[in-house]
Amino acid sequence: MADRMSIVLFSGTVDKLLAASILATGAAAMDMDVEIFLTTWGIEAFRKGAYKTNTRVSKDFEEYGSVMRELMAAKKAPTWWENLLGAREIGDVHIAACSMTLELFGLTLNDLESVVDEVTGVATFMERAKDSKVTLFI
Amino acid sequence: MADRMSIVLFSGTVDKLLAASILATGAAAMDMDVEIFLTTWGIEAFRKGAYKTNTRVSKDFEEYGSVMRELMAAKKAPTWWENLLGAREIGDVHIAACSMTLELFGLTLNDLESVVDEVTGVATFMERAKDSKVTLFI
Amino acid sequence: MADRMSIVLFSGTVDKLLAASILATGAAAMDMDVEIFLTTWGIEAFRKGAYKTNTRVSKDFEEYGSVMRELMAAKKAPTWWENLLGAREIGDVHIAACSMTLELFGLTLNDLESVVDEVTGVATFMERAKDSKVTLFI
Repeated sequence: MADRMSIVLFSGTVDKLLAASILATGAAAMDMDVEIFLTTWGIEAFRKGAYKTNTRVSKDFEEYGSVMRELMAAKKAPTWWENLLGAREIGDVHIAACSMTLELFGLTLNDLESVVDEVTGVATFMERAKDSKVTLFI
Repeated sequence: MADRMSIVLFSGTVDKLLAASILATGAAAMDMDVEIFLTTWGIEAFRKGAYKTNTRVSKDFEEYGSVMRELMAAKKAPTWWENLLGAREIGDVHIAACSMTLELFGLTLNDLESVVDEVTGVATFMERAKDSKVTLFI
Repeated sequence: MADRMSIVLFSGTVDKLLAASILATGAAAMDMDVEIFLTTWGIEAFRKGAYKTNTRVSKDFEEYGSVMRELMAAKKAPTWWENLLGAREIGDVHIAACSMTLELFGLTLNDLESVVDEVTGVATFMERAKDSKVTLFI
């Protein structure tokens, strides 16, 4: 069985999404499976179409947000979305949405991008995280 | 010995506290022990009575705060505090407060909710985290 | 081989840097090796001289920032920078900067404090994190 990295993706800011997608890419490149559990604002980031319009940057570093966007555009750096799709192409990257958050927000799997594989409960995620080499809360 | 999940609870916003409490519940439901180490703003969240008045939401998603509160009230979803107490009822959930933070803030264990079991140093926490299946910084 | 704690240091606010430095100190005190991977705003925090002028506190708790600074000064508590240097004196604390972030920001190792040991890619970090007892995203 391949080593696994698990991520609780709580945040939905592009800087954290970028970090998560790069870590997923790095793990996939090391032949690790990746398990991503979307919760709270991480769910918002995967709503249909949201990745196209989301320009939210951590408030802590908000004043750097526009510079970061310009640098990424100028250097043609892949977006977090492109990175994530790339990681799924080279490795086994599984994305689950937290059932409790969906219920609270009144959403279903159909409201999320098709890259989200399924809806699961937190206990199912914990079962997968338990056997992971690395688990991160982002 | 049961598997363990450890959490460094640094934040004190209700959205992150809710995520932490749900993860603790999920771990307890999987028969895992849970070790929570309160530090910095996590200490503030456990000051006596604070859970009753704390409505702080991550600044990154502040504009969703009131909607989230309304949804939780409308759906009678348990608060992070209720979740945490529930997790302690079904499993072994141990909560320690960081001695350095307490000293810096001029607080003692008596200033915190009785759900906090003890005051420990970071090295003691690391000793417990080291043998955990999952460790998160929230 | 010694046990290892790995940290993805994404944030650059002094409260999170302080938490990271204290965890590094605790791990080093427990004879654990520490691997720190600087990315995004964590890179900003290690730019030459930045530690002297950085007073940024998490926006979520911004109003406590000045109180925290006063308490730390009054109690002569070590800064995150002093803690980190102290951790490096008592243990094996290795600090690497994310090559992708440096490239995006147009920086090189020379732009960072000399405490940063090298520039690496995320896959190299994952290789080290994989064998860690504890890995945190801060």
